[in-house]
Amino acid sequence: MPVNLTAKPAAELFAVPGVRLFTAQAGVKTGGRDDVTVMDLGTGANVAGVFTRNRFCAAPVVVAREHLALGKSIRALIVNTGNANAGTGEAGREAARILCRAVAALKDCAPEEVLPFSTGVILEPLPADKIVAALARLQEVHWDVAARAIMTTDTTPKAASRRVEVDGIPITITGMAKGAGMIHPNMATMLGFIATDAAIALPLVQTLVREVADESFNTITVDGDTSTNDSFMIAATAQAALPELTGEHSTGYAEIKAALIELAQELSQAIVRDGEGATKFIRVLVDEAHSRDEARQVGYAVARSPLVKTAFFASDPNLGRILCAIGYAGIADLDVDKVRVWLGDVLVAEHGGRAAAYTEEAGQRVMAEPEITVHISLGRGSAQAWVYTCDFSYDYVKINADYRS
Amino acid sequence: MPVNLTAKPAAELFAVPGVRLFTAQAGVKTGGRDDVTVMDLGTGANVAGVFTRNRFCAAPVVVAREHLALGKSIRALIVNTGNANAGTGEAGREAARILCRAVAALKDCAPEEVLPFSTGVILEPLPADKIVAALARLQEVHWDVAARAIMTTDTTPKAASRRVEVDGIPITITGMAKGAGMIHPNMATMLGFIATDAAIALPLVQTLVREVADESFNTITVDGDTSTNDSFMIAATAQAALPELTGEHSTGYAEIKAALIELAQELSQAIVRDGEGATKFIRVLVDEAHSRDEARQVGYAVARSPLVKTAFFASDPNLGRILCAIGYAGIADLDVDKVRVWLGDVLVAEHGGRAAAYTEEAGQRVMAEPEITVHISLGRGSAQAWVYTCDFSYDYVKINADYRS
Repeated sequence: MPVNLTAKPAAELFAVPGVRLFTAQAGVKTGGRDDVTVMDLGTGANVAGVFTRNRFCAAPVVVAREHLALGKSIRALIVNTGNANAGTGEAGREAARILCRAVAALKDCAPEEVLPFSTGVILEPLPADKIVAALARLQEVHWDVAARAIMTTDTTPKAASRRVEVDGIPITITGMAKGAGMIHPNMATMLGFIATDAAIALPLVQTLVREVADESFNTITVDGDTSTNDSFMIAATAQAALPELTGEHSTGYAEIKAALIELAQELSQAIVRDGEGATKFIRVLVDEAHSRDEARQVGYAVARSPLVKTAFFASDPNLGRILCAIGYAGIADLDVDKVRVWLGDVLVAEHGGRAAAYTEEAGQRVMAEPEITVHISLGRGSAQAWVYTCDFSYDYVKINADYRS
Repeated sequence: MPVNLTAKPAAELFAVPGVRLFTAQAGVKTGGRDDVTVMDLGTGANVAGVFTRNRFCAAPVVVAREHLALGKSIRALIVNTGNANAGTGEAGREAARILCRAVAALKDCAPEEVLPFSTGVILEPLPADKIVAALARLQEVHWDVAARAIMTTDTTPKAASRRVEVDGIPITITGMAKGAGMIHPNMATMLGFIATDAAIALPLVQTLVREVADESFNTITVDGDTSTNDSFMIAATAQAALPELTGEHSTGYAEIKAALIELAQELSQAIVRDGEGATKFIRVLVDEAHSRDEARQVGYAVARSPLVKTAFFASDPNLGRILCAIGYAGIADLDVDKVRVWLGDVLVAEHGGRAAAYTEEAGQRVMAEPEITVHISLGRGSAQAWVYTCDFSYDYVKINADYRS
């Protein structure tokens, strides 16, 4: 059961002028559901993305990077679920190119104007022929349906919208994401696509996608594993009447960037709420750090610890495991006597041990909640970072022990 | 159920001249069993140790380090289970000193000649009074009984012996260890004690303990968590007739060092075999690396991945998860086309993907075994490292969700 996450109704997902979505059933993902999605961006769209840093990056990641490097406008994205086309070598790259050529033929554009994305089982050859055949059966759909067609072990589709008005001109931003396990920044079996009708110059989209990812998809972890396929894309279709954004001083830039970040945070946190086996949604705030990197390092040490995560599953305010994870986060000169830790609003640790006023009852009250904030003050600076994670349950093991069967 | 691990019978554990062991029941650990152990080293023993690098190191670690720093001969070690005396601040350090003073009174030595060790729940005040009271009830025991008295969630006591002969003089080496979860090098809720009757100069014991730990306790991981209390000690009682070892050219040094490493490896691997919820024992060999550190980094990325570990639990030859972990291990210039991976004797991956001759049946045959070797060749150098781990099962979650209840 995802934690406080339900599928958004279609009416709350705003169509983005310039974007048309199509899905079909290719039979790559078992279960008899749509597993191929095409996002048509029309002409003149600027697209930029960030990708996994895994050295075994998947074939579609290689091909998408190649196509983006040409600096052209992008006409369409194709996404399949059920097979990640990863660890498939040159044959896999050719399979990804076959998909781009097939979409290009449909859209009457160059194959390099199409970006491929895959998610699912790794190391199995991608049945490109099945996907190509399915393109003939594409049906136009709304975001709610497309968000469902890109899912793997997700239990709930993840899509959301924002609207901002700049000088009386409405700008629409809608996105969808998938991912439930193998989630860790840089990035996870995580696909995220955000489209806006704003016109944004290509170099600015390229900067924005990094900044937005850093504030959203790069702050989450489910199991610490970084996948081969992670991709997060922003597409700007230039259909709105607002003049093109070219830099941070452009009219509307600040509002649109803020809305993009907010939307990406909602989508990335939805992935954690739907984390494999998750029963709790956990926010880790680390502040009073020397630097943001240091704060994030401590946050991740806590958020990744299997012992901390099983304690959350058990609703056990096991402070020792949290302190222990802070202690091994790799800050060599950490003064543990200055560290303070709160569970929710309850001060649980200070001066290198349990807080004097802390009671097990107070801790238990917080741990019983489905959403918990762990606040860690390091007492050595003024930087801070948030990290989002979920607990570690029997079902995590079950899901991942059974995934291929 | 531990993986191919049974308690050694008393007859296979050789008494070490100069060492006497005592246990008693203090009632700190629930379950009505002995939870306090005293190791009397006689006079003239040289002791050195390595300790956790966790910044929240436990009170006994602080006190043991202080006492060792004085460079004196050590007369006795006291170990309690049931309470780690960690995150307990100055009161915890005083509690550890109280134990040292109580043992010193028994042995008629200085408190600084006693080293304290604790393992168990973190952040609870240590009931030193109960332990001191129990000292009056100490009974002399053999290594098999002492190994049982230092256990926490261990299911099987871990002790082993070696004997080497140098110039016709027998040298005895016997050790015991505990630890089952929160195991990761540098180090884990892991206590290890090895005693030998060889005479070894203090600076050489100090070097040896680091080298031996690096080849044994620092090559294992159960869940990636580094505990607050980890300690590994070597005590040399100088009771054997062999002249004191003073350097690597001393007669017998090579044989004794080799035996110490072999024994420490047996003990450290016993911890993995008894890993919380473990059903499989997994050896990860990484070779053809630029450096040993690099090899170890890759080995740990694989050995720590929850996705890899749940796949082992499921006996699923999910090569993709292994390749994925290699890919995110942090080697920026890794050429994945040169990486080869074997499961047991089966070549499963090469050229960036699945090996041509690989069959799922062959992979499954290896995965069904209780002991599995994953061999990863990076194709970029000649260094290698071994890492030892276990799988990740329902029971891991169960044990760690229930531990405090």
